[in-house]
Amino acid sequence: MTSPALEVALAYHQAWTGKDFEKAMTYVADDIVCHTPAGPLSGAEAFRGFMGPFTEILTGSTLLSAFGDETTALLMYDTATYPVANAPGAEMLTVQEGKVVELRIIFDRTPFDAAREAAAKA
Amino acid sequence: MTSPALEVALAYHQAWTGKDFEKAMTYVADDIVCHTPAGPLSGAEAFRGFMGPFTEILTGSTLLSAFGDETTALLMYDTATYPVANAPGAEMLTVQEGKVVELRIIFDRTPFDAAREAAAKA
Repeated sequence: MTSPALEVALAYHQAWTGKDFEKAMTYVADDIVCHTPAGPLSGAEAFRGFMGPFTEILTGSTLLSAFGDETTALLMYDTATYPVANAPGAEMLTVQEGKVVELRIIFDRTPFDAAREAAAKA
Repeated sequence: MTSPALEVALAYHQAWTGKDFEKAMTYVADDIVCHTPAGPLSGAEAFRGFMGPFTEILTGSTLLSAFGDETTALLMYDTATYPVANAPGAEMLTVQEGKVVELRIIFDRTPFDAAREAAAKA
């Protein structure tokens, strides 16, 4: 493997998809900037509040594709969660000195919103 | 560039983001399978019906990252559209003999649904 960024991105990915979120956080820079579908988040604690709860509803995952170069990694994966059976995502991770300093995540919020509404009505 | 798949993926991407959707379609296989947030589509005509209208509301785009190997390309980009100012997307494209035979696209439908609802109420 010739991509230092991909090595870190995959270590992070394997940790959170393996439900070891605390290990995943060891790859996250204190001053991470995360671009989520709902807007940007700054700092590791905000990131923990966004990504931590997702790992708790995770029931499975499949890495579909992963590439990287010196500073950037790009991943696409599928996940299964309790509320949503098929929830694919894509991430672009910028890595500096072994830590993720910027992460853009793309996923479809629609099925999660629908599951939340259905649960609220039940 | 050492990725035949990325060459085709970028040619396709540059065509549709350049609003030349007919040129983009020349890179699409007749039997393309497209995995969209709403579910799978089969065939070039179904794909045209999905992607064509999007290019008509497109007002700008920025390619954020692109990688590929022999058969697969992975892209992340941001787009601006009339209803939604920031609509990032990610695509995984499988290429055979110079054509895209499979395409997985991930984007957040939530702001598009919200814009549609707002327009219906207006």
